[in-house]
Amino acid sequence: MKRVMLKVAYDGTNYHGWQIQPNVVTIESVLNETLGALFQEEIKVIGASRTDTGVHALGNIAVFDTSARIPADKISYALNQRLPKDIRIQSSMQVAPDFHPRHQNSRKTYEYKILNCAFPMPVYRLYSHFTYVKLDVEKMRQAASYLVGEHDFKSFCSTKTVVETTVRTIYDICVEKTGDLICIRITGSGFLYNMVRIIAGTLMEAGRGTLAPEAVADILNACDRQKAGPTLPACGLTLIGYEFLE
Amino acid sequence: MKRVMLKVAYDGTNYHGWQIQPNVVTIESVLNETLGALFQEEIKVIGASRTDTGVHALGNIAVFDTSARIPADKISYALNQRLPKDIRIQSSMQVAPDFHPRHQNSRKTYEYKILNCAFPMPVYRLYSHFTYVKLDVEKMRQAASYLVGEHDFKSFCSTKTVVETTVRTIYDICVEKTGDLICIRITGSGFLYNMVRIIAGTLMEAGRGTLAPEAVADILNACDRQKAGPTLPACGLTLIGYEFLE
Repeated sequence: MKRVMLKVAYDGTNYHGWQIQPNVVTIESVLNETLGALFQEEIKVIGASRTDTGVHALGNIAVFDTSARIPADKISYALNQRLPKDIRIQSSMQVAPDFHPRHQNSRKTYEYKILNCAFPMPVYRLYSHFTYVKLDVEKMRQAASYLVGEHDFKSFCSTKTVVETTVRTIYDICVEKTGDLICIRITGSGFLYNMVRIIAGTLMEAGRGTLAPEAVADILNACDRQKAGPTLPACGLTLIGYEFLE
Repeated sequence: MKRVMLKVAYDGTNYHGWQIQPNVVTIESVLNETLGALFQEEIKVIGASRTDTGVHALGNIAVFDTSARIPADKISYALNQRLPKDIRIQSSMQVAPDFHPRHQNSRKTYEYKILNCAFPMPVYRLYSHFTYVKLDVEKMRQAASYLVGEHDFKSFCSTKTVVETTVRTIYDICVEKTGDLICIRITGSGFLYNMVRIIAGTLMEAGRGTLAPEAVADILNACDRQKAGPTLPACGLTLIGYEFLE
């Protein structure tokens, strides 16, 4: 028996998110079925991030145990031949038997993309949120700066969230504009439910001038979801990857 | 009666190219039907570039004549409310009654994208060609340099092409790599059938080392399609836009 870690990339457009649910197709269900067919044994992957319906990933993490003899680093090749084109394993490797992707210290990076021009651009429609309201990137950067560090992010998570603590650390947020595409890139110790999409919605309000950048400090202090901006749509969100720390 | 020019962006994935054909959905057929329904008169657009099945565009050009009273610059808004999400008008304006997008002097810019890493990345799969064979971007640039200028591009067009002359001018080719994505950007006076996709295939052979960059000069001189590289798939190609000259 060995434990294998997969780095999983997917286009979330046609999936009901990561987590297995009845009667819908999810990334987790496709991985379990494909691995099961490949190894002829029941496989249950453990995911690092249970991304929502429509969210994309360049490097989500899944681990599973198998008695198969195939070397761990060859599994990516075998699996990619069987997976649908919108899911592709980027690497596979053996890890310690007790390695658990959600209990491990890690840094996670997400990107949220906003297309900001007069009309939507079809080739970006599945991977960005569109707004024609002119956004001031400098104001978005100023607003973002208040979020860096260890804070209680209760204002920036869905009210449905049930967790022991809403304190998280954001190591870095950068807001870059390339052509008409604004990219918000956030690296943190962990993210609460909808946290990146609510941060993106709040920075967008700062960018359009309906929220003063310095008001973000007050929003943090309020610990009240009502104070922050809207939850932007899932399609703009991409899980870039994980870095596991010792 | 006035002549209107549209700048048309589309995701070509679900279309059988630009040009009207029986029994399939094309960009031209959707534009004619949507404009016809909007203005309650028969509309026939003239396209600048008859892009192939699966090719994308940020700014193809269509012109049409209409007796509708709506100001030309408002047509983009009215049209976008009726078009499918994978076609979006970027601008609309009135032009001279004799303006013809294919008879006008213009510079056209295309991009061909190649994803070059170990495994395909799902979010890029509809907009790039994938190869895991490591490409040397510097060699691709050297190979590209032989194509700049006025040349007979007979070696770089489909043998099916029927045109008066295969002489064209390439003003600029740049090959840039961002992350794992190689982008070949070409600006020219005009392009022959499949020309950009064959150039991309030839540069890819230079990048993988199966073709010496300086051999591109011989390929040009040969005026023989057999000498050039393969025609790369349509999905990697995007028509960026037109610049009309006096």
